[in-house]
Amino acid sequence: MNQNRGKKRITVYDTTLRDGAQGEGIHFSTQDKLSYVKRIEEMGSLYVEAGWPGANPKDDNFFQLLREQNFPTVRIAAFGSTCKVGESPENSDILLKLLASGAQTITIFGKAWDLHVRDVLRTNSEENLRLIRESVSFLAQQGREVFFDAEHFFDGFKENPDYALKCISAALEAGAAISILCDTNGGSLPADIARGVEAVKREFAPQELGIHVHNDSGLAVANSLVAVEAGVTQVQGTWNGFGERCGNANLSTLIPLLQIKGNYSVVSESALLKITPFSRFVAELSNAPFDEKQPYVGRSAFAHKAGMHVDAILKNQRTFEHMDPAEVGNERRILISDQAGKANILERLQRFVPDILKEDPRVEKAMLEIKELENNGFQFEAAEGSLDLLMVRILNGFTSPFEVLDYHVWSDPLRGELDSVAVVKVKVGEETVQIASEGNGPVNALDTALRQALAGFFPILEQSELVNYKVRVLDGSRGTEAIVRVIIDTRLGHEVWGTIGVSKNILKASAQALLDALNWTIWKFEGAREVTD
Amino acid sequence: MNQNRGKKRITVYDTTLRDGAQGEGIHFSTQDKLSYVKRIEEMGSLYVEAGWPGANPKDDNFFQLLREQNFPTVRIAAFGSTCKVGESPENSDILLKLLASGAQTITIFGKAWDLHVRDVLRTNSEENLRLIRESVSFLAQQGREVFFDAEHFFDGFKENPDYALKCISAALEAGAAISILCDTNGGSLPADIARGVEAVKREFAPQELGIHVHNDSGLAVANSLVAVEAGVTQVQGTWNGFGERCGNANLSTLIPLLQIKGNYSVVSESALLKITPFSRFVAELSNAPFDEKQPYVGRSAFAHKAGMHVDAILKNQRTFEHMDPAEVGNERRILISDQAGKANILERLQRFVPDILKEDPRVEKAMLEIKELENNGFQFEAAEGSLDLLMVRILNGFTSPFEVLDYHVWSDPLRGELDSVAVVKVKVGEETVQIASEGNGPVNALDTALRQALAGFFPILEQSELVNYKVRVLDGSRGTEAIVRVIIDTRLGHEVWGTIGVSKNILKASAQALLDALNWTIWKFEGAREVTD
Repeated sequence: MNQNRGKKRITVYDTTLRDGAQGEGIHFSTQDKLSYVKRIEEMGSLYVEAGWPGANPKDDNFFQLLREQNFPTVRIAAFGSTCKVGESPENSDILLKLLASGAQTITIFGKAWDLHVRDVLRTNSEENLRLIRESVSFLAQQGREVFFDAEHFFDGFKENPDYALKCISAALEAGAAISILCDTNGGSLPADIARGVEAVKREFAPQELGIHVHNDSGLAVANSLVAVEAGVTQVQGTWNGFGERCGNANLSTLIPLLQIKGNYSVVSESALLKITPFSRFVAELSNAPFDEKQPYVGRSAFAHKAGMHVDAILKNQRTFEHMDPAEVGNERRILISDQAGKANILERLQRFVPDILKEDPRVEKAMLEIKELENNGFQFEAAEGSLDLLMVRILNGFTSPFEVLDYHVWSDPLRGELDSVAVVKVKVGEETVQIASEGNGPVNALDTALRQALAGFFPILEQSELVNYKVRVLDGSRGTEAIVRVIIDTRLGHEVWGTIGVSKNILKASAQALLDALNWTIWKFEGAREVTD
Repeated sequence: MNQNRGKKRITVYDTTLRDGAQGEGIHFSTQDKLSYVKRIEEMGSLYVEAGWPGANPKDDNFFQLLREQNFPTVRIAAFGSTCKVGESPENSDILLKLLASGAQTITIFGKAWDLHVRDVLRTNSEENLRLIRESVSFLAQQGREVFFDAEHFFDGFKENPDYALKCISAALEAGAAISILCDTNGGSLPADIARGVEAVKREFAPQELGIHVHNDSGLAVANSLVAVEAGVTQVQGTWNGFGERCGNANLSTLIPLLQIKGNYSVVSESALLKITPFSRFVAELSNAPFDEKQPYVGRSAFAHKAGMHVDAILKNQRTFEHMDPAEVGNERRILISDQAGKANILERLQRFVPDILKEDPRVEKAMLEIKELENNGFQFEAAEGSLDLLMVRILNGFTSPFEVLDYHVWSDPLRGELDSVAVVKVKVGEETVQIASEGNGPVNALDTALRQALAGFFPILEQSELVNYKVRVLDGSRGTEAIVRVIIDTRLGHEVWGTIGVSKNILKASAQALLDALNWTIWKFEGAREVTD
């Protein structure tokens, strides 16, 4: 059954690889970009703006690769500008390279704000209209689909509405398939967007229009929604909201918002289910931090911490969830923290023993143990691996298959690289192994030594990798004698889990977190992982 | 000149310490909360929701501390709920603890969605109205200012508008000063918010109203704006948007948005200038990552990467900046060649050499050095001691009176207390001293050894004390090999200052921060602290 039937269709134009890459700290290699396009095929029919041909050799090379391969469900767009002041399109290096890219869709931007015409192009209004008209017309005559980005449309419309509309008119008359109204500086309010879109609709209906906004006022998603409500049918944006300054409209938010809340048809139902993992994939590809608080797709988006919320959720999920997390491929998480109650813990134990009852003494036991640990500075909401290990221990499902007999660390920070050495001694069954290992800093040396000592016995450990390491000083007012909390995230395949250690000694806290990570990997992925009740 | 004159006044109600603390990974110690309240005094007249008395001993203790001190410009609010089903207010533990907190303003939430009344409270509609009416009335009769949070107002209004309005009516008739309309689940669209607020205004005007929304649809800022435009005068939110799930309305965005774009009077001009450093301070305090892409206050908010943008900006800053970053205490950054920030650095240098000119080569030198350090992970916002030390070094006013020739640390974490030993060798003048010292953990051992080695030469060091120690792992995705940033706060008399160290080795980072702290203490409080220009 197609749940999109009968709904108004909105097209997504994805500029992650171009405008997204203009964000601070965002870089994609050619190989990254290729992985991106391959993977985004799953997300259904989308426009993907692949780069600016001629801007750098990397982008040219990428368009070449795209020509050699076939991506049936993705429509590749090349991005560039109009020809230059005083230039004719036939002689424009910019336009010729756009054609040479082979992209079937070409998006060019032109100035729609007279301030830019005067101060940046340093020409007159008529010449700017000529650049738009002749550039669009030249590309359209070559049989390409031409999109016109009306740069700074909303700022221009505010200061000189007639001229802003003339720029749109020039592009459309010259054969642009769609004109995209841009809030390039991100300073417009929803009311400005509505006014601008409505004016263009009045003048050019039933012409199809697009929206491209930035998040400088924290309104990129709202402004895109307002534009769609005012009649725009193409939304431009980037995954995770990457982009220049505060970023572009965030597709990870906007797509579910339009489809689920707004009742538009944007992507297929199956693509919607992949939005959570895809957003995370894009962050990993660009090596940018993933915002876990992101609406819809963040790890915290459906995470409940307050005990009263958890209690209510278990009675009726609508009480504290605005939608079903599964619709976007995300999941509910019940956090165990000092704000949690018995309901949170029961829910966790039931993952291992589904029919355990609230009255079972082990529920009380787990709660007391967790409260005790929390009083000592443990905090399980970001350490679900340690939490589950505790749960299976209490359910009698687990004892560690190894023992750490001893470990020491020696550090000489003035020595440069590999300035630390760790020595560990572990016992597995009847066998005892002692290993020494160097590292950058004492924690890294210890980590390396422990893994080396155990990987021979438990080969699964070689498949897992440590993906994150966090340290927090609890009540730092006791200075360097303060208690330290370490959280480590480990990945195996698609699964990521956190483990925790707490101590006055940062090495000991790190060792605890690390040992939990190793134990949980072994329990979960190697050998019997049944809890016999 | 008061630039707010004649503008409509909007009050800010700050729930960072309560709803913000319900965000995943956010924790404030009692000491953190006290620092917060002290610092937020600078931000002008605001309501600060300090916690839920009775929910845990930590919150009770904090209200006690607040009673003992005086914060003339901050209005402290205590948060809680109505009394329970079947309970009378006089016997309500919740309400009695709210009174005992001593807070002059008390905010209680009650159910405004009949689904919650039925499925969570498991009572009837009349009883819920009684809870609201009697709880508000009881608190108001004790002379407190009572705010009523109408929990889930917008969801309730959608499904049963009459009942949602009756809940508001019950609170207002019982003496609530303000009723706050809550989008607790964060699923409402701007049009839902407008409809709800307008209905309440129609029924209860000229009653003052508030708005409290969550960001589950990426619309918290837009929804707050819509509510204000519809007539609400109190906005609730959290700094950096901390809070349950996807967080609350972000005050760091909302305050500048309302004041600069929306033309409302929210905070003083001088408070607006402090918004950027204050937002960062809150993130540091909670040890949560600071979103550098945040509108207005992020490091990237006015950072220009694309060459064409930079070129245009230099012709006219309006071309790619929606406002002047200085209005919110932020600055433009040009990611290729930095001309910005010079004014800030000049201001800092002038603290030591008042008549230094912008053209002085040392201004350029300081800027380049700071930029280089920032690229390597240093961050001086919370480390003004290290920053000033750098300034006086560049002004030729300082060379360290001691030299650390060597240091080593040995740690044996399974040994229990005092599990680590540090050996340091320092040279002061012609004298060399070697000291070994035990500690809890390697960092504490190193700290103790360095202080012992130097205190004999510089007695002032015995008067200074280390009051805070924070560790942050930068880019933790490289696991235990990641770069670590340490910030240490030192106090001498009434003065507290931060110093910083960055390294792959946590000991080295800690030693750097510690040595800056010692050097700054010696320079500032012992011997000649003149900069001779």
